[in-house]
Amino acid sequence: MYRPEIKIVDCTIRDGGLMNDHRFERGMVREVFKALADSGVDYCELGYRCDKKQYSTDQFGPWKFCDEADLRDVAFECDTKVSVMADVGRVDYGDLIPASESIIKLYRVATYAKEIDKAIHLGNHLKNLGYEVAVNIMAVSHVLEPELDEALRQLSTTNFDMVYLVDSFGYLYSEPVQYLADKYLAAVPGKQIGIHCHNNQQLAFANTVEGIIKGINYVDGSIYGMGRAAGNCTTELLLGFLKNPKYNVQPVLDIIQKYFVELQKDLKWGYEIPYMIAGVLNKHPRSAMAFMKSANGKTFGEFYRQLVDEEA
Amino acid sequence: MYRPEIKIVDCTIRDGGLMNDHRFERGMVREVFKALADSGVDYCELGYRCDKKQYSTDQFGPWKFCDEADLRDVAFECDTKVSVMADVGRVDYGDLIPASESIIKLYRVATYAKEIDKAIHLGNHLKNLGYEVAVNIMAVSHVLEPELDEALRQLSTTNFDMVYLVDSFGYLYSEPVQYLADKYLAAVPGKQIGIHCHNNQQLAFANTVEGIIKGINYVDGSIYGMGRAAGNCTTELLLGFLKNPKYNVQPVLDIIQKYFVELQKDLKWGYEIPYMIAGVLNKHPRSAMAFMKSANGKTFGEFYRQLVDEEA
Repeated sequence: MYRPEIKIVDCTIRDGGLMNDHRFERGMVREVFKALADSGVDYCELGYRCDKKQYSTDQFGPWKFCDEADLRDVAFECDTKVSVMADVGRVDYGDLIPASESIIKLYRVATYAKEIDKAIHLGNHLKNLGYEVAVNIMAVSHVLEPELDEALRQLSTTNFDMVYLVDSFGYLYSEPVQYLADKYLAAVPGKQIGIHCHNNQQLAFANTVEGIIKGINYVDGSIYGMGRAAGNCTTELLLGFLKNPKYNVQPVLDIIQKYFVELQKDLKWGYEIPYMIAGVLNKHPRSAMAFMKSANGKTFGEFYRQLVDEEA
Repeated sequence: MYRPEIKIVDCTIRDGGLMNDHRFERGMVREVFKALADSGVDYCELGYRCDKKQYSTDQFGPWKFCDEADLRDVAFECDTKVSVMADVGRVDYGDLIPASESIIKLYRVATYAKEIDKAIHLGNHLKNLGYEVAVNIMAVSHVLEPELDEALRQLSTTNFDMVYLVDSFGYLYSEPVQYLADKYLAAVPGKQIGIHCHNNQQLAFANTVEGIIKGINYVDGSIYGMGRAAGNCTTELLLGFLKNPKYNVQPVLDIIQKYFVELQKDLKWGYEIPYMIAGVLNKHPRSAMAFMKSANGKTFGEFYRQLVDEEA
């Protein structure tokens, strides 16, 4: 698959930070950015821009806050653009400086559909500061169709650059992805559509490919799939699949070997049965993450039954 | 997805046996069969029917040979039928007894396209003995189209029950799966089509679902994906996806917890980077399996380059 418009947005450090409280060593983050740049990856998302009045810097590492100095310490100006995520309600507008003074090129505003007005307010502010802006509507598998339609209609009136289809719970398979991709593409003409998938059912890469086939051009990946719970579509599979000659999978393969194989054994993101169960049942991964820490004597089968029964 | 015609063929012990020289403990195999029966899985494939004159019983465990007494020791008559694989050229016809005297219900003849005449000869013999017969054309991603068409044409003239689309190298994604599913369905009218996928690119479940959407009714899975190298579509994901009320995922989840999580750490099937590289490059997994045992100082990136260069 080769469309020059396709862009890979690697979110290893941002989504992966949810597994280690954003405590990556600086040297490692520097090497990750370098490997992604050498592989031709278009964007590297280095973390969240969270308000330090809401979150403690003792409890969380630097990539939850993404101070300009920290970003410049690990990234450098090149064809790989720095992206940062801004959660609706967790950002101090006073922290946001003009794009001309920042190494950040893209802000991605993460929102639930019900908070779309706040997301648009934040997006407008960021757009006025000169950034590329994406809005990521999270947990689409829990959104009622009319609310999704209304959120997309509102986004169509903005001058934002991208709107993201986000399967936070790893619930979707090809048919609903195709349906939603068609909907997003039709609803916000003139904007790029992105897709961010979770791997609870080993479908993150497959669903991303379905999105690409439908015309989605912004695709999220993370190295070795590192991300919350079941993790994400892997960047190395995207690099292996996309035929754009600027991409080269080798630097990412080597950084996996250096850091991520061991890290995965320690932090256990990926296809684990509790996460699979949450995905099959269209549930937030929080109870699965709790079960991974302590099963309290429950079996996998009992955990499945518990989640089914909670619905009642 | 619920079509009553859909059948799950679990091949944990058969394909998984390629990772441990078919040395599963009898007690464990018994529990696996029981869990699959309790989950409503339609077929349980317990191994290969290999000729003991060609393979040593010292070197390989019982599930490479599948003696009738061994099968009866672990399986019992129920709605879950016993399946066994017979590789073309590795079977002693003298070992094959009438179906009426065997607990085996289904023989799956594994062949490369170029040996289709031998496969048909063996299949006819098994059909005459009273078995259900499938022919699995392996490594379809390496078969020239006219040779595949000819093999399917020859199979269309037989009275076999199923023909399998097998992505041995884990190379395919949705579009070629759809193309091949259409081809198989059109080429052997009146027979069931099956699909067996490998997970090198985390696409085994996704591709199996694409097959189901196209009309394929026989779907291979294995518990926790256990199988050669990157392993297979997982049986638990199939059970989670298929809405046939006879299926129940819980017994399989519990057997995963009891045996397969630990076994996977030891034997390392699944998404490992050397297997991913082989899949992306459409290669037999043998060099990746050798690299997993000893990298000889090579990095993942260098192994990728080596496989690319071998093509030249």
